[in-house]
Amino acid sequence: MAPVRTIAVIIAMEAEAAPLVEHLKLVKARESPLPGPIPALVFSGDVHGAKVHVVTNGKSAAFGVDCVGTVPASLTAYGICLALKPDILVNAGTAGGFKAMGGAIGDVYLASAFKNHDRRIPIPGFDTYAIGAVDAFPTPALRAAMGFKDGVVSTGNSLDAPEVDLASLKANDASVKEMEAAGIAHTAELFGVPFVAVKAITDIVDGDQPTADEFMENLGAAAKALQGAVPKVIEFVAGKELSAL
Amino acid sequence: MAPVRTIAVIIAMEAEAAPLVEHLKLVKARESPLPGPIPALVFSGDVHGAKVHVVTNGKSAAFGVDCVGTVPASLTAYGICLALKPDILVNAGTAGGFKAMGGAIGDVYLASAFKNHDRRIPIPGFDTYAIGAVDAFPTPALRAAMGFKDGVVSTGNSLDAPEVDLASLKANDASVKEMEAAGIAHTAELFGVPFVAVKAITDIVDGDQPTADEFMENLGAAAKALQGAVPKVIEFVAGKELSAL
Repeated sequence: MAPVRTIAVIIAMEAEAAPLVEHLKLVKARESPLPGPIPALVFSGDVHGAKVHVVTNGKSAAFGVDCVGTVPASLTAYGICLALKPDILVNAGTAGGFKAMGGAIGDVYLASAFKNHDRRIPIPGFDTYAIGAVDAFPTPALRAAMGFKDGVVSTGNSLDAPEVDLASLKANDASVKEMEAAGIAHTAELFGVPFVAVKAITDIVDGDQPTADEFMENLGAAAKALQGAVPKVIEFVAGKELSAL
Repeated sequence: MAPVRTIAVIIAMEAEAAPLVEHLKLVKARESPLPGPIPALVFSGDVHGAKVHVVTNGKSAAFGVDCVGTVPASLTAYGICLALKPDILVNAGTAGGFKAMGGAIGDVYLASAFKNHDRRIPIPGFDTYAIGAVDAFPTPALRAAMGFKDGVVSTGNSLDAPEVDLASLKANDASVKEMEAAGIAHTAELFGVPFVAVKAITDIVDGDQPTADEFMENLGAAAKALQGAVPKVIEFVAGKELSAL
């Protein structure tokens, strides 16, 4: 097995990615190397001897906001896997945490597995497909070195959490609630690309404050936490055999 | 504007596509022309002077069932737009209807617009992005010729419809509830490919029977309705200017 030479980091929102791009001194590609007209932005550079690409989903031309959610994330991952051929794919971003699972604002999680909490298909076979549980690429050495928290990352396309989603989040044993990882995991699994995720907690799902307020308040702080965490992950991963992660 | 020479029809499930593929005498590509390892199956042939591709999402290797939902649908559409360069993209499939909107089992709808009912992001700008309303490509002549029903197609990743989704379906003014169209619309809009959808009703969302039972009971009948409807759409569209649709 060859060592990790190319690392792609997929981040949904520009505000989440900006501090990291600046910190790593990455340069924005004038023309996106991803195939077709997906609006992803690609920032690239050499970091610790590896080629690193930080890729955001880009903005929706129709609605003028960052393309969050599973559909743009899986499309961006598809473009990345086709064009950039990463040895490992990392999803970094902000997320909700759970008091009941020991989570607090500013915590950084390294995902153990990915599931969906907003796909319910009560037909045998389709029920487990809908949850779509897939393990993160095993990285015991990275996990030990980073000291991040460990937990299931559960994905849905909504920022809120009505009863029906809370029940699925609980059934999923979720420590982290966010909006992209399971969509990216779907694409990464198709390509057989090792996939891990690093998530910084901006809000507490089972807390008192509405998620939207808390999210906007803590977005900057969590972006800074990512700016701290993700370069450490890149430094650890760069040049190592996958089996040594 | 050139006439329509290439028509791609995207259908989530093989059981939905099979009667149509047989009826149109399409041949399955031994190797998928779509880029990368997405499991889509491509059936192609010449129909009424146009190149017609019927494409299913294919089966999940991990879970052994058809890849339903917005993520695989948007990926398949991305692959189609990159590789097959269709002049028009048609999504055909089964769906839920609404008694309250005049819907009945076996009805065939031609979508007027596409929206999401399972994406809720209560932040200004992101709220409308989440719903993601986009009009179907305008086809007044096709609409008049086919006599299909007219209505908003609303997409979510679940077969059931809890209160929170029912409220969104109502707010979306939905006549049709299904699981792929808005994901495909996202991709089609990126590529600027005209997009329409034909949906046959297998179950009544605001009826008495559980959707899963009703869906499995009526899947065959609805597939036959599609087998009737989609070739008529293809015959009408083939060789016409887009502005004449």
